[in-house]
Amino acid sequence: MALRHVKIVGSGLIGSSIGLALRAAEVEVTMIDINPASEALAVDLMGGRAADIPVDLIVVASPVSTVSQVIEGENRINPYSRFMDISSVKGKPKEEVKSLGVDLARFLPSHPMAGREVGGAESARGDLFQERAWIVDPEGVDSHLLSLGSELIALCGAHRVDISVELHDQAVALISHLPQIFSSLLASQLNGAPAQWLELAGSGLRDTTRIAASNSALWREILTANAEALKPLLRRAISDLTSLEENIEDPEYLENFINAGRKGRSLIPGKHGGQPRNYTYLPVVIEDKPGQLAALFDECAEANVNVEDLSIEHSPEQFTGLVTLALSLSDAEKLYQHLKKSGWNAHSPRF
Amino acid sequence: MALRHVKIVGSGLIGSSIGLALRAAEVEVTMIDINPASEALAVDLMGGRAADIPVDLIVVASPVSTVSQVIEGENRINPYSRFMDISSVKGKPKEEVKSLGVDLARFLPSHPMAGREVGGAESARGDLFQERAWIVDPEGVDSHLLSLGSELIALCGAHRVDISVELHDQAVALISHLPQIFSSLLASQLNGAPAQWLELAGSGLRDTTRIAASNSALWREILTANAEALKPLLRRAISDLTSLEENIEDPEYLENFINAGRKGRSLIPGKHGGQPRNYTYLPVVIEDKPGQLAALFDECAEANVNVEDLSIEHSPEQFTGLVTLALSLSDAEKLYQHLKKSGWNAHSPRF
Repeated sequence: MALRHVKIVGSGLIGSSIGLALRAAEVEVTMIDINPASEALAVDLMGGRAADIPVDLIVVASPVSTVSQVIEGENRINPYSRFMDISSVKGKPKEEVKSLGVDLARFLPSHPMAGREVGGAESARGDLFQERAWIVDPEGVDSHLLSLGSELIALCGAHRVDISVELHDQAVALISHLPQIFSSLLASQLNGAPAQWLELAGSGLRDTTRIAASNSALWREILTANAEALKPLLRRAISDLTSLEENIEDPEYLENFINAGRKGRSLIPGKHGGQPRNYTYLPVVIEDKPGQLAALFDECAEANVNVEDLSIEHSPEQFTGLVTLALSLSDAEKLYQHLKKSGWNAHSPRF
Repeated sequence: MALRHVKIVGSGLIGSSIGLALRAAEVEVTMIDINPASEALAVDLMGGRAADIPVDLIVVASPVSTVSQVIEGENRINPYSRFMDISSVKGKPKEEVKSLGVDLARFLPSHPMAGREVGGAESARGDLFQERAWIVDPEGVDSHLLSLGSELIALCGAHRVDISVELHDQAVALISHLPQIFSSLLASQLNGAPAQWLELAGSGLRDTTRIAASNSALWREILTANAEALKPLLRRAISDLTSLEENIEDPEYLENFINAGRKGRSLIPGKHGGQPRNYTYLPVVIEDKPGQLAALFDECAEANVNVEDLSIEHSPEQFTGLVTLALSLSDAEKLYQHLKKSGWNAHSPRF
């Protein structure tokens, strides 16, 4: 193991989560932040200050617009420092670091594909990157830095994916930044609507606008920094939406429009990469009181089935709740028979 | 109880789910469908043919474009029939029924606010409408029909909400049809993207495009029928998106844009109407094997806390999973202390 001491600049969600994962692997971690209170919290989370051994790697986990400033300052302290950033946009900071005159062999552009709607060290978790992709652009990076970066990624439980900064920025514009724009734009259309209308909202509107709750200071930076990759996507979306508006009375056009969306949706793989998962859903109506879920899971254990996911739907004033268990097809059938036999109010499995 | 025999025309998800709820209340149900195989399945689901007693109410649960045809045919069989439709758009079918010369006092326009991404009698559930809003426009409807309709809604476990057909169509254009268009449009932008990009997709893209998987034959009808209410919403969205594209390099503009979305998102109430729920989230890392969830819920029962919702995240090859429990703040703190004491790998609660 080459990684003994990592300095992390920026104690937000990502920086602190990396710190926690490294501490769990007994790597020394120095946290610094421009905000003293944030730094103090992050240092506490790491179990105090690091031992006084040389820093192997500096992780720049500050906002994307500050990456080159941080590197400039750190480079002045130690001109042999090796850097890795984690920002959501890769082309712009690399360009800025290059214009500083810093040798790009000492800068590994990277982007862990993980996040939460909440930010700050208080939301950090050491398992944030478990099983996630962590993009790096190894082009021109010295082999020692690349191996340190790869070790950090492995210690965080993520898997390294090599993509050039240019392709990275195009990819995230499509799969991350455009969804944010659509979600925010849709949610903003709700302003001014009567409260009675919004009370009728179903899960479609809720899901589609979930990420509209994201942090505006963060997204302001991300979208600005990736403007070049976003522009052609926005122009295409405007053109498609304009064409839809013109054809909103043409059933055939609309059917093709919805089908194009179905096709696009089907291209998204399952939760952790790899193949999409095809779960079978088993609805069970339970009494809404403590102990019922435990009893239900006792039955699952007894039937020796593995519950992949579940959702609970109930209202506070109601005495029953609907639990929908996601299982493999064979487990769903096994559990359904088991629950029926044991007198549970299970409904037949559906796909 | 006045409702003894209901005839349901159209054995899709909604028609069959209404039938199941009525059968559970021992109301006789006659299911008919233009497709003999669908009708046969629906009749079986209802436990066979209805007893030979007069029909009190005809529920028109066929596609929106066929509502007036169905009423015309049924009215020829019995010119005293009372009708209730359930279609997602209300203005157009009412207009068509009016132009048939049928007395509008015998037609109750209604719309249950429930659905699934899957359709057909095989997806039907008697509890589909539990706790959901069910919109009716009682204007000019005879009091006997209104009381039959209200009884049906109550037997389905839903609550009646009175809204005029005009306002209904504007409301669903905003809270249901526009989200469908945004989700489909976003998902359609993914066509042609490299598979490697899509493997990087996170939950943001997944949530935002979930409803893009919806049925195109159904949505073709809904969007066409509600074109008038949709047009001004689409024009506003095009204008907002165009303005965003023009200002994509202006950080202040982008911050306001994201904040407008945050504000709109915050207007959506919690799952079942009423106030939004503020859950506290308790992450627990468990071993990914049968029995672990049961053991966890045994602890919840022992701590006497009520789990409001949960999500499970794990990958098939991994031996640990992350369970995030949603609870009230006080229950989350109580359970956290309890789990830590019992040696569970619980992380501190977050909001």
